[in-house]
Amino acid sequence: MTDHATHRRSGGRAARQAARAIAHAQTIPFLTRTLKPFEVLGEEGLSLIEHNADTILEEVGIEFRGDPAALSLLRDAGADVQGELVRFPRGMCRRIVQASAPREFVQHARNPERSVRIGGNATVFAPAYGSPFVRDLDNGRRYGTIEDFRNFVKLAYASPYLHHSGGTVCEPVDLPVNKRHLEMVDAHLRYSDKPFMGSVTAPSRAQDTVEMARIVFGADYLEDHAVILSLANASSPLVWDASMLGAARNYALANQATLITPFILAGAMAPVTAAGACAQTLAEALAGMAFVQLVRPGAPVVFGSFASSISMQSGAPTFGTPEPALILYAMAALARRLGVPFRSGGSLCASKVPDAQAAYESAATLQPTVLAGVNFVLHAAGWLEGGLAMGYEKFVLDADQCGMMGVFVDGMDLSENGQALDAIRENGPGQHFLGTAHTLANFETAFYRSELADNNSFEQWFEDGSLDAAQRANAIWKRMLAEYEQPPLDPGVDEALREFVARRKASEPDSDV
Amino acid sequence: MTDHATHRRSGGRAARQAARAIAHAQTIPFLTRTLKPFEVLGEEGLSLIEHNADTILEEVGIEFRGDPAALSLLRDAGADVQGELVRFPRGMCRRIVQASAPREFVQHARNPERSVRIGGNATVFAPAYGSPFVRDLDNGRRYGTIEDFRNFVKLAYASPYLHHSGGTVCEPVDLPVNKRHLEMVDAHLRYSDKPFMGSVTAPSRAQDTVEMARIVFGADYLEDHAVILSLANASSPLVWDASMLGAARNYALANQATLITPFILAGAMAPVTAAGACAQTLAEALAGMAFVQLVRPGAPVVFGSFASSISMQSGAPTFGTPEPALILYAMAALARRLGVPFRSGGSLCASKVPDAQAAYESAATLQPTVLAGVNFVLHAAGWLEGGLAMGYEKFVLDADQCGMMGVFVDGMDLSENGQALDAIRENGPGQHFLGTAHTLANFETAFYRSELADNNSFEQWFEDGSLDAAQRANAIWKRMLAEYEQPPLDPGVDEALREFVARRKASEPDSDV
Repeated sequence: MTDHATHRRSGGRAARQAARAIAHAQTIPFLTRTLKPFEVLGEEGLSLIEHNADTILEEVGIEFRGDPAALSLLRDAGADVQGELVRFPRGMCRRIVQASAPREFVQHARNPERSVRIGGNATVFAPAYGSPFVRDLDNGRRYGTIEDFRNFVKLAYASPYLHHSGGTVCEPVDLPVNKRHLEMVDAHLRYSDKPFMGSVTAPSRAQDTVEMARIVFGADYLEDHAVILSLANASSPLVWDASMLGAARNYALANQATLITPFILAGAMAPVTAAGACAQTLAEALAGMAFVQLVRPGAPVVFGSFASSISMQSGAPTFGTPEPALILYAMAALARRLGVPFRSGGSLCASKVPDAQAAYESAATLQPTVLAGVNFVLHAAGWLEGGLAMGYEKFVLDADQCGMMGVFVDGMDLSENGQALDAIRENGPGQHFLGTAHTLANFETAFYRSELADNNSFEQWFEDGSLDAAQRANAIWKRMLAEYEQPPLDPGVDEALREFVARRKASEPDSDV
Repeated sequence: MTDHATHRRSGGRAARQAARAIAHAQTIPFLTRTLKPFEVLGEEGLSLIEHNADTILEEVGIEFRGDPAALSLLRDAGADVQGELVRFPRGMCRRIVQASAPREFVQHARNPERSVRIGGNATVFAPAYGSPFVRDLDNGRRYGTIEDFRNFVKLAYASPYLHHSGGTVCEPVDLPVNKRHLEMVDAHLRYSDKPFMGSVTAPSRAQDTVEMARIVFGADYLEDHAVILSLANASSPLVWDASMLGAARNYALANQATLITPFILAGAMAPVTAAGACAQTLAEALAGMAFVQLVRPGAPVVFGSFASSISMQSGAPTFGTPEPALILYAMAALARRLGVPFRSGGSLCASKVPDAQAAYESAATLQPTVLAGVNFVLHAAGWLEGGLAMGYEKFVLDADQCGMMGVFVDGMDLSENGQALDAIRENGPGQHFLGTAHTLANFETAFYRSELADNNSFEQWFEDGSLDAAQRANAIWKRMLAEYEQPPLDPGVDEALREFVARRKASEPDSDV
C-alpha cells in the first residue's frame, strides 16, 4: 500500500500527511482494488484527447463567471484573460495541478476507523446526491424532507457497503433553502461517523460547513487533515460560475477537498460524440483543479466526471447506455495519467422505479465504475429517475451490488486453500463437494451472500409471497432503520453543534434562494 | 480481421476453410470486439491453474463412462486407462487439442448473411437453453410447449441483437421426449435462418440433427462446413458420460461443432474456491476436447465453462455473485492461451421474475462475458430462475442489453468527427450543443437507442400508465411475434424436412426417456 500512499511534495507537512495516511489506511473501510483497470484507449488515443483538451483550453477557453478574484489569480499564473474568458497556454493547467495536487489523500471521519483513502487503488462508495424527491413502495414519490435526509444518513451509516455518508442525500424541501445546509451537515455529523460532504450552494454555506467541522474535529485539525469533501460542478460547456468557485475557494483555503466535476450530458453540454465529450471534460476539470491549486497549493482535489447521454428523440437524459461507459473508462485513464484521484460513475438510471430497467442501467454504470478504477463513487446507492428521486428500495438494491464489488476487486485467491487441489484429489470423479472438509472449512467466507437475492426454489418463493426484489428491499430498509443505533457524540460537541446551528438560523430570515 | 481468421493447419482444406471464413466474415452479423479483454490473473496465476489442471488429469483422472470405444481411443493416444478412469500424462490433452482444433471457425447459417464466426475477437449471442418452464406476465409460469419453443425461435430471429437461434430454447414438454428433437430442429430450420444447435440427449438424436441439416444444406456441404453447434456438458466433477460422448462423437464424425462444457456450481460439482473450480474446469474441458480431436482431428470444438456459485445456507445455485465473474475472466484467458474458441456467460439469474434482482444478476454475468471476450454466449437472453424458466419479458430485456454490448465493443471513435473539436470551437462557453451542425450530423448514430427503456419525465411516464420495464417488454414481444415473417424456405427442402420428421416419428413409439 505504501507505493500508493504518497504525495508529490516531499518533506515537512506533506511527509507527515503521508505518514498519517498510511497509518490510517490499514484500518479504514474502503475497497482496495487488486486488479488492473480496464482500458478502452491506448497511449495514442489518450494522448490525442489530452492534446485536444489543451487545444480547447488554449483556443476556446473557459469562462470564470462573476469571480474577479479568480480572474486575477489565473492572469497572474500566466493565463490570457479577456473579460471573463480565460485561455490557457498549452500545458499550463496540467503543470499547476501536477506541481501541488496530492496524488491521493485521506478524508478523515470523526470515527478514525471510518476514514477513507481517496486515490490510488482505493475505491469509496457514497450515496446518491441531490434529489428533490424520494420514493418508497409505501408512499410512492414525494418531495424529500429532513426526516428522509436523516433516514438516508442512517441507512448509509448502517450499510457495511457504503463507506461514506455523502452530501445532499436528498433535498430537505421542508426547510428554507438558505438553512438546509445547517441541518444537513448536522445530520451527517450527528447520525453517522462516516466521512461526509459539505455545502456548495453558496460560499457562505461552505464556510458554515467548515465551521461545523471545526466544532467536531477541532479548528487546528482541519489545517492538515481533509475532513470535508465537496462537490463543485462546472456549468458545462466551458463555464465555472461564481457560487461553485466561491465554495471551492473556501474549502481550499481551509485545506479541505473538492470534487471538480464537469457535468456532461453529451449532445447537450458537450459534443454528441464520446471523444469530444472526453476532451471537453478534461479541459474543464483541468481549469477547475488549476484554480483550486492556485488558491491553495496542495489542497486536495479530485478530478470528477459525470457524463451521460441523451435521447436523440426527446433530449431527455439517458443512463446505462454504452457510450457513457466508454467515456468513464477513458476519463479514469486520463486521471491516472494526470496523477490525481478520480470521481465518476455510480448506480445511475433513468427509471422511475426500482425495476429491471433501473438495475440494468445502474449495473451498466457501476460495473465500469469499478473496473475503471474510480476512486470516489458518488451516487453509488439510491439513484432513480436521472437523479430526481432518491429511492429507499433502490438504496438497498444498490448497496448489495456495492457489497459484491468489494469481493470482486479482491481478485482470485491463489493460495493453497484457494487452489483446492487436495479437495479434488480426495473427492475424485463423480463425488460432490458439498460435505467435504475443504467446503466446510471455507463455509464462512465462500461466496458473497446477498441478503436481498432470493435463491430459493420457485415453490418456496411462491410460498413466501412471490415477492420481487423491491418488495424484499422494502422490508430490509425498514429493519435497518428500526435497528439503527446512533454513534456516540461527545456531549460538548453535540451542544456546540446545536448552538451553532441555532445561531446561524437566527442570523437571517428564511429564504428560498 | 485476417489475423484472427486463421486455422492452425495450413494448405488444402484448412486454407479453403479459412478463405471462406474471411469471405463470410465481412457480412455476417456478430460482434467484433475492438477492446482488449479484462484480465484478473497474470501469467503466473494462469500458469498455476494450467499446472493444476495437468495435475488433476495426471493424478486424479477423468471417468469416461459407458463408452468403451472412447476408452480405446484414449488408450491408443497414450492415456493410462484403468476401468473407466482415464489418466493423462502431463500436457497430453493440450498437445492433442493444439495439434488440430481450429482456433476459430464459421458456423454457417442457411442464410449465408447470418453465418457467424466463432473464436478470435468475435462474440455471438444465442438465447437461453434448456428450461422446462416458460414465464410471461399474462400466464405466469407453466411448462413449455412446442408453441413456446417456436415463439422463442421467432423472437431470436426477429431480434437484431441475437445472432443465433440457439438450441433447446425451452423444453417442448407437450411432446414425447424421444421425438422432441425432431420438432425442435425443424423449428430452428423452418422459422429462422440463423445458425442453430443440435440435439445431444442421445447419439441417435444427434444423428437425426445431422440428417436434417444435410437435407437443408446438402450432404456434401457438411463435410467441410460447420452448420451445427451442439452443447456437450460434462457430468462434473471429472466425468464424461456416454450420451454426451456419443453425441459429441457423432457431430465430430460429421465435422460439426461441439461446445465442450464442464457445468460447475462451485461448492457442489467443484471446490468452493474460484482457483479450484478453474483448474477442474480446465481439466474436464481439455479431456473432452482431446476426445473430440481424436475422433476427428480438426472438427471444431469450443471450450465451454458454465460456472456459478451456491448458497452456503441452502445449497441452491446462485447467480450474479462476484466469484463466478472472476472464474469467467480467468477461464476466458485460459482458452485464449490454449488457442480455441470460448463459450461462457450469458444473462444468468436466480430470480423467478424479471425484476431488479434478475437484471442485476444478469448484468453481473453479461458484462464480464463481454469484457472477458467470450466467443459464444449461450443463455444471452431469456434466462430466469437458474435456467428453470424461459421468460418472454426477460428475453426482451436481455436482448436490449445485448444490443448495448454491440455498441460498447466497438470502442471509442477517434475520427475527426468523433473528436468534435470544431463543434466545441464553434459553440464556445455556455452554448448548448443540441442544435449544432455536429449534433445534427450525428443524430442517426449517436447513442444506443433502447426501445425498452423509459427516459421520459416522471409526469409523462405516469400519464403513460406507470409501466415498469417488464410491462413494456410484454408489449414488445407480442408486437415482435405479431410482425414476425417466416424466412423463405425452398419448397423441396420444406417437403423433405416434413417427410423426414414424419418418418422418424413413425419409426418408434412415443417414449418419455
